[in-house]
Amino acid sequence: MHFVRIRDPAGAVRRGRLEDGVIHVSDTTYEFESDEIDVLAPCEPSKIVCIGRNYADHAAEMDSDVPDRPLLFLKPPNTIATHGSSVTVPAGKERIDYEAELGVVIGEQCHHVPEADAMDVVAGFTCVNDLSNRDDQRQEQNWVRGKAFDGAAPIGPVLATPDEVPADASVRSRVNGDLKQDGSRSQLIFSVPELIAEITTYLTLEEGDVIATGTPEGVGPLADSDQVEIDVEGVGVLEHTVRIP
Amino acid sequence: MHFVRIRDPAGAVRRGRLEDGVIHVSDTTYEFESDEIDVLAPCEPSKIVCIGRNYADHAAEMDSDVPDRPLLFLKPPNTIATHGSSVTVPAGKERIDYEAELGVVIGEQCHHVPEADAMDVVAGFTCVNDLSNRDDQRQEQNWVRGKAFDGAAPIGPVLATPDEVPADASVRSRVNGDLKQDGSRSQLIFSVPELIAEITTYLTLEEGDVIATGTPEGVGPLADSDQVEIDVEGVGVLEHTVRIP
Repeated sequence: MHFVRIRDPAGAVRRGRLEDGVIHVSDTTYEFESDEIDVLAPCEPSKIVCIGRNYADHAAEMDSDVPDRPLLFLKPPNTIATHGSSVTVPAGKERIDYEAELGVVIGEQCHHVPEADAMDVVAGFTCVNDLSNRDDQRQEQNWVRGKAFDGAAPIGPVLATPDEVPADASVRSRVNGDLKQDGSRSQLIFSVPELIAEITTYLTLEEGDVIATGTPEGVGPLADSDQVEIDVEGVGVLEHTVRIP
Repeated sequence: MHFVRIRDPAGAVRRGRLEDGVIHVSDTTYEFESDEIDVLAPCEPSKIVCIGRNYADHAAEMDSDVPDRPLLFLKPPNTIATHGSSVTVPAGKERIDYEAELGVVIGEQCHHVPEADAMDVVAGFTCVNDLSNRDDQRQEQNWVRGKAFDGAAPIGPVLATPDEVPADASVRSRVNGDLKQDGSRSQLIFSVPELIAEITTYLTLEEGDVIATGTPEGVGPLADSDQVEIDVEGVGVLEHTVRIP
């Protein structure tokens, strides 16, 4: 099943089930593309825990080694941007990159989760664009200006239950319709259960928190007004544009 | 003035004014040390933005250079720990350090704040212990295991309005009563307004967010059951213990 969070015509935030382009909220239905609703982020993360270099081909294109344990970094709630939004990125930067990622949405508060039980705490999957400000990322010890700027995590539009997303689900990006990245969940160096076990050794994850599992090769720079699509098989397509001041 | 957030005997979260050891909540009063209330964190940050190496003497003791712009890192909400709490740190680590810091509590949502206007968005100051897991911090690109583990940000107990905290306020830590750090706000390499201006160039700060402004020299390791005090002049004393599994 596919779930969305929307703001309905009365301004209330509702959770609905998406089927064949129609959102079912109790006994009311809305067209997904309708102007009378706003599609919100599918969850409300207190934090997004991101994974760097979790695809060997992407590590190689960044002239980096594959890490021997997950490379973790953080995106706070100010980074959330929604499906259909226009993200204004930091001004005066040479290179703002897209990075298509499979997002894992956590379903319950959890800590010290063994790998074998990790899928029990997963509510489902979504699409994330790990927008990256390379100018600053390259200079920083911690990637805050580089990865945690406002709007740096377009996410959504749906939460797909785990059964919808195959073990080899494709993870793709397109910019202005051109395919840029075409990876697969099966290429993850650290699997979703391995990531959950490692993260929760240190950090409690909350219901609605997101793990952005890393990006495959093919990252590249965005230009003003570019239209970005993040397409995860079994989830759907997240679309947004960028405004580069 | 000094404000505290408490859980009252009915279980409700209330904001009160602290004066001479007595908390005034509307027309009710409680002793600060009373067992019938819980003292909570003085605010509810969506993120804590921390500053590394913002005192020259601490940069030197860490064999590090003073950065040419603020070194930023993040502590998410799972790091919050309260006055009087016992913080259980990650297991099996050689070195967990205390770091006394002046915490800035943000009073309103803000973005692109000019230095000259920065104090207008400050609700007040508090004490923060930037607990640091050096074992992992030394190995990580981003300090997530090192700085963002559960309980890594004991904070409080009060929010002191800006007029209470002098420009040269002392920033001290004691462990089991022994003075370990004795710095001053006047030693900050990047001042509070400079930090707010730099951070909000990239990240929107929310009401209740906290900036941990960095620690003076004298950091050191904690042992199981150590009692830590973070003492910021004009704010008061934050106390907690650590449990090292």
